[in-house]
Amino acid sequence: MLARYRTLIEPALRDTVASLHPWVGDKAAFTLGWAGADGTSIEEHGGKGLRPALALLCAEAVGGAAEQAVRGAVAVELVHAFSLVHDDIIDNDERRRHRDAVWKAYGVGPAVLTGDALLALAIDSLSRTGDPTAMSYLSRALVELVQGQTRDMAFESRPWTGPDEVTVAEYTRMAEGKTGALLGAAAATGVALGGAPQLAEPMWTMGCQLGVAFQIVDDLLGIWGDPLVTGKPVHGDLRRGKKTVPVLAALAGDDPAARELAAVLASGATDERTVRQAADLVEKAGGREAARALAAQHLTAALDLLDEHLPDATDLRALSASLATRSH
Amino acid sequence: MLARYRTLIEPALRDTVASLHPWVGDKAAFTLGWAGADGTSIEEHGGKGLRPALALLCAEAVGGAAEQAVRGAVAVELVHAFSLVHDDIIDNDERRRHRDAVWKAYGVGPAVLTGDALLALAIDSLSRTGDPTAMSYLSRALVELVQGQTRDMAFESRPWTGPDEVTVAEYTRMAEGKTGALLGAAAATGVALGGAPQLAEPMWTMGCQLGVAFQIVDDLLGIWGDPLVTGKPVHGDLRRGKKTVPVLAALAGDDPAARELAAVLASGATDERTVRQAADLVEKAGGREAARALAAQHLTAALDLLDEHLPDATDLRALSASLATRSH
Repeated sequence: MLARYRTLIEPALRDTVASLHPWVGDKAAFTLGWAGADGTSIEEHGGKGLRPALALLCAEAVGGAAEQAVRGAVAVELVHAFSLVHDDIIDNDERRRHRDAVWKAYGVGPAVLTGDALLALAIDSLSRTGDPTAMSYLSRALVELVQGQTRDMAFESRPWTGPDEVTVAEYTRMAEGKTGALLGAAAATGVALGGAPQLAEPMWTMGCQLGVAFQIVDDLLGIWGDPLVTGKPVHGDLRRGKKTVPVLAALAGDDPAARELAAVLASGATDERTVRQAADLVEKAGGREAARALAAQHLTAALDLLDEHLPDATDLRALSASLATRSH
Repeated sequence: MLARYRTLIEPALRDTVASLHPWVGDKAAFTLGWAGADGTSIEEHGGKGLRPALALLCAEAVGGAAEQAVRGAVAVELVHAFSLVHDDIIDNDERRRHRDAVWKAYGVGPAVLTGDALLALAIDSLSRTGDPTAMSYLSRALVELVQGQTRDMAFESRPWTGPDEVTVAEYTRMAEGKTGALLGAAAATGVALGGAPQLAEPMWTMGCQLGVAFQIVDDLLGIWGDPLVTGKPVHGDLRRGKKTVPVLAALAGDDPAARELAAVLASGATDERTVRQAADLVEKAGGREAARALAAQHLTAALDLLDEHLPDATDLRALSASLATRSH
């Protein structure tokens, strides 16, 4: 299903990026998985294109043609790429999709500029539609994206327990911004460009809910995912002390396992044995199960909104459901 | 004159920034000169506010109220702030307006995020007007800004002389993007929001011309400006080997001074005596005079557009002229 949409989006995406000065265009091509750092082009490239596919499916779901939403799809994919490039700088992550992060491959300055270029192209792409509703949701998503990333950073200096601990509710608010907003913008711009701006608000909410589910699944994979499938180290998020839902939910319980987990986390140890013990304690304290239930709850909220507003959109429903049940 | 506009813009700017999470809001306040890195607020702050004043004056010049263009003015000021924060990272500049650069004060990651936050707020501010013409010029400016910054970076690895030398024409194209585009967006959004979208295109061109003049004056100050007034080291641009108009224009001549200058630059020496010698040779080879003439030519082009389209806008004309005749 995604392949069909990719054939619509990719030529438009390549056209847009081709307008860049080659100095930054090469780095953008690397970012989007089209080329290696040495400039050689890559045929089978990464990037699942979920966000642009969501935009096109939303346009079709309201009776429009997928083509009407291509600029919106290109915009959300470019914003997504921008956010990955800058997040890797901000989070000091050296690897992305089994390759060097952009800043690692080209340096921090060029990576900042490449991210800015992708964002500028995104705004410009959508602006060319002249659709103020679509633009208002993309700009809302940009603000929410930055706010979400900020909350995530601010979590780092907060304690695991006590009055200043991060709650699951705060996490949810963070994930709505960091992951939900851009899915919300994809859905909202899709219906707006497809001819149904009155559905933009519920589809924004739908995408935000979907994003929270997506992020929680990501958290689960970050602890228990198969490294061969995810491309990320096993227990990576635990080793880095990231405040993810399974851990926060486990700590919120007041049983012996939760208290033992708190002590282990407070020790700050990151050796293999300790991290494995922490993962086991998260599970024992019910964190894994609580995270699964929370993801299911947000996915249901998203699907309920689809059922209410776009009951016949079976492909859209299938794509949305697949986002929160993926294994990588 | 600028004080009146500042009283219109600053409350709106502060309101907009207040919506940020405090973690990044504090860094945005530092960026905008409202607070020190320790959080203490600053009464007399920097930032001349030329771009927002230009937007408001343009709205008034077409018979609108300045208030109509406040969101446009806020947007261009925020984009300007964004670009300074990221440019200082990209150019590895440690100082800005007699203070630490944002990345120097808070670290690179937080500075990337602060810049992104300012840009997101800018887009969102203008998007709330629902004016597609204004938005189209802001997004065009963003793309041009990034392209200009890219050209400037790409100049660094080009030789001073020979077939790959940077020409004055290439420089002009770079400056149109790096400095002109945002002034163009200020003027274009100003007239669009003021009720005359049909004047947006000529005002965009006017602003771009003004920006080239502004940038050339900046180049002149970067070599011969008084460090006490500019806050920058004497001969700073020469020491860093920046490709500025006075130097490029001097090298374009084929007299003994130009050849001697080329040899001095090729030596790569940055001691005080060599840099002073280079400055003298630039002047002797006619680079200072040529740069002044080029700045005047671009300023005249801008003023001619104002005279043609907005002949009664005396305040706007005065502000525009002052931009290209400043001493700091």
